[in-house]
Amino acid sequence: MADIDQVTESILEKIDSEGFKQEGAYNLRYNGYALCHGDTQHIKIKRKEDRQGIDVYISGETKGEQVHIPVVVAASGITDQVYNDFYVEEGAQVTIVAGCGIHNSGCNDSRHDGIHTFHIGPNANVRYEEKHYGEGEGTGAKILNPVTKIIMEKDSVFTLDTAQIKGVDSTKRETEVEMGEGAKLFVVEKLMTHDKQSAVSNMDIYLNGAGSSAQITSRSVARGESSQTFHPKAIGNALCHAHIQCDSIIMDKAQVCSIPEIDAKHVDAAIIHEAAIGRINSEQLIKLNTFGLSEEEAEAVIIENFLA
Amino acid sequence: MADIDQVTESILEKIDSEGFKQEGAYNLRYNGYALCHGDTQHIKIKRKEDRQGIDVYISGETKGEQVHIPVVVAASGITDQVYNDFYVEEGAQVTIVAGCGIHNSGCNDSRHDGIHTFHIGPNANVRYEEKHYGEGEGTGAKILNPVTKIIMEKDSVFTLDTAQIKGVDSTKRETEVEMGEGAKLFVVEKLMTHDKQSAVSNMDIYLNGAGSSAQITSRSVARGESSQTFHPKAIGNALCHAHIQCDSIIMDKAQVCSIPEIDAKHVDAAIIHEAAIGRINSEQLIKLNTFGLSEEEAEAVIIENFLA
Repeated sequence: MADIDQVTESILEKIDSEGFKQEGAYNLRYNGYALCHGDTQHIKIKRKEDRQGIDVYISGETKGEQVHIPVVVAASGITDQVYNDFYVEEGAQVTIVAGCGIHNSGCNDSRHDGIHTFHIGPNANVRYEEKHYGEGEGTGAKILNPVTKIIMEKDSVFTLDTAQIKGVDSTKRETEVEMGEGAKLFVVEKLMTHDKQSAVSNMDIYLNGAGSSAQITSRSVARGESSQTFHPKAIGNALCHAHIQCDSIIMDKAQVCSIPEIDAKHVDAAIIHEAAIGRINSEQLIKLNTFGLSEEEAEAVIIENFLA
Repeated sequence: MADIDQVTESILEKIDSEGFKQEGAYNLRYNGYALCHGDTQHIKIKRKEDRQGIDVYISGETKGEQVHIPVVVAASGITDQVYNDFYVEEGAQVTIVAGCGIHNSGCNDSRHDGIHTFHIGPNANVRYEEKHYGEGEGTGAKILNPVTKIIMEKDSVFTLDTAQIKGVDSTKRETEVEMGEGAKLFVVEKLMTHDKQSAVSNMDIYLNGAGSSAQITSRSVARGESSQTFHPKAIGNALCHAHIQCDSIIMDKAQVCSIPEIDAKHVDAAIIHEAAIGRINSEQLIKLNTFGLSEEEAEAVIIENFLA
């Protein structure tokens, strides 16, 4: 068992809601190297030879197992770029718990760029969770720029559940999904920005296969002087269904820009999007005030529920 | 009274649903020059000295009058670029009926670019109608690229009602609206494309004044191999409300891309958009079939109602 220090333990608690343990299939990346790792009968993790990162092989026998691959950056001035590839065989059922936490107590920027590619075999069902978090009293920025590419084969199911909890100064998220026949995608994106943080999320979903469907839900809260830009894009190239929904709460002097693009290139593509930006519902605030909560407490409750 | 030939008469019927007559305030532009024009006590139309186009002065006394300013291009190979400016005084109530029809029986492209600027005084209420239409057995394209700028002062109301009926091979529409305190904007955009036609509509609405509001409704039908792109954008810089709704019916091998952008830069900006692209409702088709309508007749009825 590798020794894990207290800062890292505390960050792991934030970014791995299932609870990180050194058992089953796991890989803990710490300040740019693999601190510890484990395989199982069905899931093998191999370090890449040619560059930073791992290849994760998930066999078709996998049913209900979890893979934990958290990343912790605890030094100031590090730029950690890592390439992780996931090969999920036909019929596998797996939950992948990723996530990155940065503790920056220095004056230099700390940055992690996770470039993830998922090859999802036919009928496989994958749940991918990713939490982003920053902390530390330093003036150096905490920067996270994830790139996610998902290639979905026939009748596969992929659930992408991402959350940026707090403390991330700057993030630029690029997501691209190619969907085969009958493939089903569920995306839930949750984002909270505060102070002078900025967040950009671009997502291109290609519904190429007949019967493919995508459900994208984005919820965000922008506080302070932070700014957010969402640009989810659904391209319907076949008989398909897509529904994009973006809801944002804007507070203080924050700015939110939402640009959901729907692009129907096939007569049987049915695509819907909805987006709304507004301040906290004042009726909800008043109701909670009457229950004795202060303005601040009431706001906190509403935001927590909105992002729950 | 100027003589109006039969082709022009027939085009005027298509583009001026109120009925064009040589009375009241009017200006008929034909093949790049003003064929006839008239003023009223409250509405004066002056030809520009420095370039093609007219200045239309609408006094605050105007209550319920109409101004008709149709454009007909009946020659092949013409490019007609015209600048029209509208000065609407405080408290005026007026309907402006514009529109452009192209009859192209030759092999060269015919094109009209109407660049319109509206200065809307406080409390003025303006309805602006614009129909676009193309016809003619020639192989030359019928091209319309309107540019519309609207500056709305305090508590003014502007209704922008545009329709592209049929026969326009290529259109690129640019619309920009700057809204002052309490200003109200209503936009209804209707578009039908067929064959290999392409249509692009960009619309930037700046809600700068407290209490300003915008309601944008876009409805389109894309048939044949035509393509459409909508990019309405609402920028909320103050306490404001905006609602953008885009609905498109896609048929045959057509493509529709809808990118409504909502950009909240103020905590009291409340902006909503919704968009949907899909094929004709099959339940409606079946119902009409059971009433004895053929597939084609049923489609025509549904489309007509959708764009009504």
